[in-house]
Amino acid sequence: MRGAMIYAPGDVRFETVDDAKILHPTDAVIRTAVTCVCGSDLWPYRGAEPIGDPHPMGHEYVGFVERVGSEVTSLRPGQFVVGSFATSDDTCANCQNGFQSSCLHREFMSTCQAEYVRIPNAEGTLVATDGVPDETFWPGLLAVSDVMGTGWWAAEAAEVKPGSTAVVVGDGAVGLCGVIAAKEMGAERIIAMSRHEPRQKLAREFGATDIVTERGDEGVARIKEMTAGIGADSVLECVGTSEAMRQALQSARPGGNVGFVGVPHEVAIDGQELFFSHVGLRGGPAPVRRYLPDLIGRVLSGRIEPGRVFDLTLPLEQVAEGYRAMDERRAIKALLKP
Amino acid sequence: MRGAMIYAPGDVRFETVDDAKILHPTDAVIRTAVTCVCGSDLWPYRGAEPIGDPHPMGHEYVGFVERVGSEVTSLRPGQFVVGSFATSDDTCANCQNGFQSSCLHREFMSTCQAEYVRIPNAEGTLVATDGVPDETFWPGLLAVSDVMGTGWWAAEAAEVKPGSTAVVVGDGAVGLCGVIAAKEMGAERIIAMSRHEPRQKLAREFGATDIVTERGDEGVARIKEMTAGIGADSVLECVGTSEAMRQALQSARPGGNVGFVGVPHEVAIDGQELFFSHVGLRGGPAPVRRYLPDLIGRVLSGRIEPGRVFDLTLPLEQVAEGYRAMDERRAIKALLKP
Repeated sequence: MRGAMIYAPGDVRFETVDDAKILHPTDAVIRTAVTCVCGSDLWPYRGAEPIGDPHPMGHEYVGFVERVGSEVTSLRPGQFVVGSFATSDDTCANCQNGFQSSCLHREFMSTCQAEYVRIPNAEGTLVATDGVPDETFWPGLLAVSDVMGTGWWAAEAAEVKPGSTAVVVGDGAVGLCGVIAAKEMGAERIIAMSRHEPRQKLAREFGATDIVTERGDEGVARIKEMTAGIGADSVLECVGTSEAMRQALQSARPGGNVGFVGVPHEVAIDGQELFFSHVGLRGGPAPVRRYLPDLIGRVLSGRIEPGRVFDLTLPLEQVAEGYRAMDERRAIKALLKP
Repeated sequence: MRGAMIYAPGDVRFETVDDAKILHPTDAVIRTAVTCVCGSDLWPYRGAEPIGDPHPMGHEYVGFVERVGSEVTSLRPGQFVVGSFATSDDTCANCQNGFQSSCLHREFMSTCQAEYVRIPNAEGTLVATDGVPDETFWPGLLAVSDVMGTGWWAAEAAEVKPGSTAVVVGDGAVGLCGVIAAKEMGAERIIAMSRHEPRQKLAREFGATDIVTERGDEGVARIKEMTAGIGADSVLECVGTSEAMRQALQSARPGGNVGFVGVPHEVAIDGQELFFSHVGLRGGPAPVRRYLPDLIGRVLSGRIEPGRVFDLTLPLEQVAEGYRAMDERRAIKALLKP
């Protein structure tokens, strides 16, 4: 089969790779329907994370069950399935607590920009849809497998409540999905921080009521001005840099909450600053598995359209161009079709 | 009048100080009924915080209204009042949100180890009891003004819920009050981390179900053992050091919460560690004012006895001995009587 491999910063190749196989009786192999490039894939692509030996890439997927291991009884070949970037058995104590992305048997998916994908703990990880959804829904369901689930988690971790004010730091696909989530959770005012006109437009269409273009201290000052001087109830930090984290923490009001979902890169939080801010802080890899049934329903009913974050569609074999387009910010997010 | 002044590490003196006066029409002056020495007073006493010029000390108090400013109409001389270590107007946006210790007009009290005390924003800060309580309740009400309110906040910030498991890091007066709070909030299992026999005993009497004497990595391992390998639902961090914070964060389960109430001293939190822990973190100066009516009621009904953290009672003029006894861990907390 063929799939994407990263060799070095800026060097992603589509080539023949090891076939996806059943390695454990709890595995499934799926035939990829659509996959995509994630903002977090850009960290190694930009040289901001070590790459080591050449390795496969990709952790977002929807597809058709191709075959299952001997212990998999609730899935059958031909079913259309949505998963998460983190596998889960859905039975351990952390899964039972709703934190499937901290499953005691978690593996992070990393081979999904390929024609076929092995899914560990398939029964716990995958959710099958009722029949095969119309192809127009595939991008939305693909978004649910990561960016929409992550935006939802950002809003949940930031404790967005009906009638509240939410700020979204980051206008990538996750930030834009965070806007959708804040809207669905009933935020009355949703302030998207963005400097890019096409992303501002999409943010507004997803439910943002205000756009703030300032960053850093100026961005914080602007948020304070808009929130009676005290800051927002909820801030969704969807970037993962020190600057974004500082901006998020300072934009939240005392008693407010920051949900942070960008994997932090060299971010240190000063204990005393956090203390006197009175801000609650929670982050981590999104427990997407918990949200799947609900979010799949919202997509298939047409209530939310997170698939709109894909503004570039390419054949899977042009995966390298997908990376380039996102790196150069020519695309928000690139969809790949095998 | 007379009060405590700190001159240098280890050098607290009881001497003639400036009289407490009405400086603003919203002030009151109270005659101190009882005051005390706080664990946080030991930071400068031990040289761990700069002292600068000699200055008064103390931020815990209950007392009798002596006189009020011209704009104070809801308080009258002779009333017995309980306040907070942080003043509040109880009307600003942060106060309305229940975070009175982030009041836009907040001042931190700092002159309370004295015969009389000026209280800024008296109407917002003070709560008068129904008549003068029996003297046996004064220590409990004094605890409410800081350590009991802070323990309550630690449990609230750690989101202690009925049936949950709570760990308390720190066996000072705040940690012990945190045990009371966790019990009142319905925690089923309360694990106090303590190596000091008299404090272990008090923790058990306050509701601790288990005592863990190990610290650091060993302490974390012990907590994991006791919690099905995943960690506790809620951890109350009542110390304020890097070691205590690390221990607290690592003792909480994914999806659990750490409430931190020790003022952090050179504590830096690694963003990536916090991220992958899935632990929620919130701290800050306790919004004691919000809790006052409720906690005063619990003390006066005899339901809770936080006054038992005072295991040393001295005349106010022996305040220096109170510091020494606490510094040398001969006392958990020293009560001072003018």
